[in-house]
Amino acid sequence: MSAFDALMTFERETRALEQVAGRLGWDQETMMPPGAKDQRAEEMGAMQAVIHARRTDPRLADWLAAAEAEDEVGQAQLRHMRRDHARATRVPVALAVQLARVTSTAQGIWAAARKDDDFSAFAPVLETVLALKREQAAALAEGGDLYDALLEDYEPQTSAREIEAIFTAMRPRLVALRERALAHPPRAGLSGVFDEQAQLHLAGQLAQRFGYDLARGRLDKAVHPFSSGSGDDVRITTRTAVDDPFNCLYSTIHEVGHACYEQNIDPAYRMTPLGQGVSMGVHESQSRIYENQLGRSRAFCGWLHGQMEASFGDMGLGGAEAFYRVVNRLHNGFIRTEADEVQYNLHIMLRFDLERALISGDLLVGDLEAAWNDRFAADFGVTVARPSDGVLQDVHWSVGLFGYFPTYALGNVYAGCLHAALRRALPDLDAHLAEGDLRPATEWLRETVQVHGGLYPPREMIARASGATPDAEPLMSYLEEKFGALYPDG
Amino acid sequence: MSAFDALMTFERETRALEQVAGRLGWDQETMMPPGAKDQRAEEMGAMQAVIHARRTDPRLADWLAAAEAEDEVGQAQLRHMRRDHARATRVPVALAVQLARVTSTAQGIWAAARKDDDFSAFAPVLETVLALKREQAAALAEGGDLYDALLEDYEPQTSAREIEAIFTAMRPRLVALRERALAHPPRAGLSGVFDEQAQLHLAGQLAQRFGYDLARGRLDKAVHPFSSGSGDDVRITTRTAVDDPFNCLYSTIHEVGHACYEQNIDPAYRMTPLGQGVSMGVHESQSRIYENQLGRSRAFCGWLHGQMEASFGDMGLGGAEAFYRVVNRLHNGFIRTEADEVQYNLHIMLRFDLERALISGDLLVGDLEAAWNDRFAADFGVTVARPSDGVLQDVHWSVGLFGYFPTYALGNVYAGCLHAALRRALPDLDAHLAEGDLRPATEWLRETVQVHGGLYPPREMIARASGATPDAEPLMSYLEEKFGALYPDG
Repeated sequence: MSAFDALMTFERETRALEQVAGRLGWDQETMMPPGAKDQRAEEMGAMQAVIHARRTDPRLADWLAAAEAEDEVGQAQLRHMRRDHARATRVPVALAVQLARVTSTAQGIWAAARKDDDFSAFAPVLETVLALKREQAAALAEGGDLYDALLEDYEPQTSAREIEAIFTAMRPRLVALRERALAHPPRAGLSGVFDEQAQLHLAGQLAQRFGYDLARGRLDKAVHPFSSGSGDDVRITTRTAVDDPFNCLYSTIHEVGHACYEQNIDPAYRMTPLGQGVSMGVHESQSRIYENQLGRSRAFCGWLHGQMEASFGDMGLGGAEAFYRVVNRLHNGFIRTEADEVQYNLHIMLRFDLERALISGDLLVGDLEAAWNDRFAADFGVTVARPSDGVLQDVHWSVGLFGYFPTYALGNVYAGCLHAALRRALPDLDAHLAEGDLRPATEWLRETVQVHGGLYPPREMIARASGATPDAEPLMSYLEEKFGALYPDG
Repeated sequence: MSAFDALMTFERETRALEQVAGRLGWDQETMMPPGAKDQRAEEMGAMQAVIHARRTDPRLADWLAAAEAEDEVGQAQLRHMRRDHARATRVPVALAVQLARVTSTAQGIWAAARKDDDFSAFAPVLETVLALKREQAAALAEGGDLYDALLEDYEPQTSAREIEAIFTAMRPRLVALRERALAHPPRAGLSGVFDEQAQLHLAGQLAQRFGYDLARGRLDKAVHPFSSGSGDDVRITTRTAVDDPFNCLYSTIHEVGHACYEQNIDPAYRMTPLGQGVSMGVHESQSRIYENQLGRSRAFCGWLHGQMEASFGDMGLGGAEAFYRVVNRLHNGFIRTEADEVQYNLHIMLRFDLERALISGDLLVGDLEAAWNDRFAADFGVTVARPSDGVLQDVHWSVGLFGYFPTYALGNVYAGCLHAALRRALPDLDAHLAEGDLRPATEWLRETVQVHGGLYPPREMIARASGATPDAEPLMSYLEEKFGALYPDG
């Protein structure tokens, strides 16, 4: 057997084990009996130990040194495996173990601090997490930029400087758009009681319309919506609230975007490094374009309005145009996960700037709460009164996810690029959307993006699909046009 | 770290992985999307490869040689680990791989042959399976009895000769009891339509009454009822048929017996060799005593009759005594899994004798169908017309499960021993059962059997709990008394 074949055989088995570990995570959120919590931690620990041992197996270095690939696909496989191996072996085992232990504790401390609205209770453990992440980043960076070294886990081959350039161009235009919209009188959301079974039924229908293959997936309820798994077993969850059907429906469409990306990757790449979405940013571009550019479009909202009336009866909105305005209303809020298409990006930029400063050492944990509140007041014009509405709202930093936040907004930027190209490719897209027919759009995304899996680096992937180096302009034009019309001047 | 501690640490992790593999099996039967079948086979193969590598890890031999245990528990742990290690390493890897491959194919061939009612289509692959099993048995037996070597996997420290002695004493009495009952005019079963949701609801209530802890388990529907997992995550399944609520209710009670055994083992044994039921026979004794000696008793049937009338309305039986007779009616039938308390054991004895003869070489696969049909006519007085009603009805031999069948009837024998002791310990048991109160009985079983897990070898376990070396007398007396009254002479 050649070194390349030995490598691929070993890799397939490791990835199969990773799928099993992922499914265990799905089970934990959907099916696991509550009393199994401690036992599950032990089971998951055993799986992670096995996977970690394989990712740092001494044979890998020899195989990687000797392996040769004949074609573009093989070369891409090798590129991924060399990168993953380098990252897995650069971090000392003792540091990896310590990080796992500390972040596991820190998450509980964060949850308690958020509940008590007390940042000072979280700050000491956050300092410890941050120190360990800086150490990890230094080991990974080998002299390069610390933040970039962490970012590489979520958005490979993309630098913070490139992201900064994109975000810097967006921020003043987003602030201006926000101010203009919120100068209007507040618009009401939906009111009423919406049967939760009917919500789930409609969510299931929407999932299929957006291309989700239920023969290779399933839709369950969970506390948080998520998508899990690759290939032929990609499961999603949603949630229901009796007074807010949009939460269920749009979180389902969002997760369907993630799930379709995984389901539609070339079957030849299954259980290989190319067999999963290439980055968090590209992943988020799929979930966002499904949810926003398609799901919240005027044309699709017209169709969805009819479906919702059929499911829930008259919603008292007085027609599809009013429905579209409710779906896309802007409103003040402190919480990232509840933010609209415009303000969401501002929430991310705030976190991106703060976490870069934390990693570089320019910002101390002791000054983080004040820095957050100052920045929030500057961009959102509102004062944060409680840390649970501010610096304590997200779990990410407690579990060591530094470098993850920017991929959310990068996903929006990529979705903007893809949407512009999609509109050029399908001039009659709105006619399809108005009939609830998503196939032309999702088929285009499947062919141009999803099928390729990890074949191309993220920015190259978007450039190939959209025909241009990704930048903020398509997203900003789209947002300014859409929300400019929804919230006209004067 | 001492050799014993190193061994136990390694063992805990292996058992945690085995729990994960087991949960994957549960998922496959309950939640897995149909299109994930091939991918799942790859995931399961990866898990099994990891577990097999750990079970044959070269370090184990050294640790086992050096390990010393201070107390009874530690010695029992070592006894299990030495036995498991010897069995895992005696079988050559090439043979284990070939067996896995052949049985995987053979199961499909068996299913097709059963569908086509054609034993000759199954015979060739069965010959291959049998030859490999004989080879495996020879490797395991190291000069000892081949069948005993296979039996050891399911009923450790128990010989076929011991089982034969028990079965030989039972067979004529069972045949006589059968003939006497079936000389009566046939009795009708239940008729009507029974809402399946109401069946599941009642099944859930029964599960809890029999002591199943739903905070550490769950009840789902599946094609076949089963119990899966150990410790704090023990899940069961049931099935429903609109015209047969007994199938759902009694299969639930049966699986609850298995599940309670696993849930009630001393928590100090979790993820160790002592942390699971000690044998298939003892396991089956728990499921059978829950289902039969308790669940089909006159006292409990009186209470259950009221519950079923509350759930389904008047069943047209005219009272609790008639209900008890329906629950316990005997009827002619070819299929083991549909057999009653009396005839079930005859089905097992037939298989035990035939598979022993196959393993010893006294019976050839080519003569198996005729041997089955002759024996069936002798014990059941009925002629098998189709192999799907006879030699092709069970999956076991196709997947290499030789030595498994006798544990079902051994479980009945053990249940008989435990039931006699239980009645002595709790003279007012019927008064509790008549109120649907299972706690005194299940608590006695928990304390005398379940809590010990794998601490004592199976026969010793039953002897300790029942106060005497296990034999067939208590079961036979119970059956003759119960069914003698239900089907009186003349």
